[in-house]
Amino acid sequence: VSANEFQSQRDSLTHKLKDSESRNQTLEGQLSELEQRLESSQQEQEAFRTSLRTLLELLDGKIFELTELRDTLAKLLEGS
Amino acid sequence: VSANEFQSQRDSLTHKLKDSESRNQTLEGQLSELEQRLESSQQEQEAFRTSLRTLLELLDGKIFELTELRDTLAKLLEGS
Amino acid sequence: VSANEFQSQRDSLTHKLKDSESRNQTLEGQLSELEQRLESSQQEQEAFRTSLRTLLELLDGKIFELTELRDTLAKLLEGS
Amino acid sequence: VSANEFQSQRDSLTHKLKDSESRNQTLEGQLSELEQRLESSQQEQEAFRTSLRTLLELLDGKIFELTELRDTLAKLLEGS
Repeated sequence: VSANEFQSQRDSLTHKLKDSESRNQTLEGQLSELEQRLESSQQEQEAFRTSLRTLLELLDGKIFELTELRDTLAKLLEGS
Repeated sequence: VSANEFQSQRDSLTHKLKDSESRNQTLEGQLSELEQRLESSQQEQEAFRTSLRTLLELLDGKIFELTELRDTLAKLLEGS
Repeated sequence: VSANEFQSQRDSLTHKLKDSESRNQTLEGQLSELEQRLESSQQEQEAFRTSLRTLLELLDGKIFELTELRDTLAKLLEGS
Repeated sequence: VSANEFQSQRDSLTHKLKDSESRNQTLEGQLSELEQRLESSQQEQEAFRTSLRTLLELLDGKIFELTELRDTLAKLLEGS
């Protein structure tokens, strides 16, 4: 193989390596962005669920109070 | 530059290119996996929200029925 | 006592008896009317209470259905 | 008519008048008792209705609070 040929192969490889490294950077950027979106989505879900749990407790309270009201009506009907 | 030197550079570049391409494959695999997790998470969230919307409609129904019951009691008290 | 005197007493007593019997009739009429009002009032009360008992059962149903809805929400929150 | 006959009529009337006045007293007693029962029954009914009106207001409050809870759930679903 002549020196010219080796030089030509070297130049071609240098070009391919640059392309591959550029692609790497792009992929790492996309990966990082996706990881942030996933984390942010999980935090939103957790906040949503926390709000729903508060709502569930409020609903429990309302059901308890309606049951008390029902018992008061039952006692009024028994006593009268 | 001698032919030997060009050959040595070529071999080094060939090695670096293989490493970079291997890294590319790994990153593409991680990206694909993350995209699937995000999609799956969004589908779960959507299903969760659909269930909550059904629940909201049921709650609307119960409130409506309690209001009817309340009106019946009010009419009983007016009429008696 | 002379016959005249006895006659006069008899006439006076006849008059008082008529008054007393007339008063009796009035009282019996009032008593009968009051008994009917009391009976009618008790029937209305009983009808009122029957309506309230139906209402109490409806309220029980609504509380039961709200509790089911609450359990569905609790399961959604546990499962998600 | 002889004096004896008048006397006999007078005695008979005196007896009837006493019976009639005794019956009057009995009727007045029954009437008074019935009036008290009716009044007492009306007071009980009024107290019963007052309790029911309080209950109706409590029920209104619970329905209002359930509606607020429902609106919170609706907003959570819209916002998420």
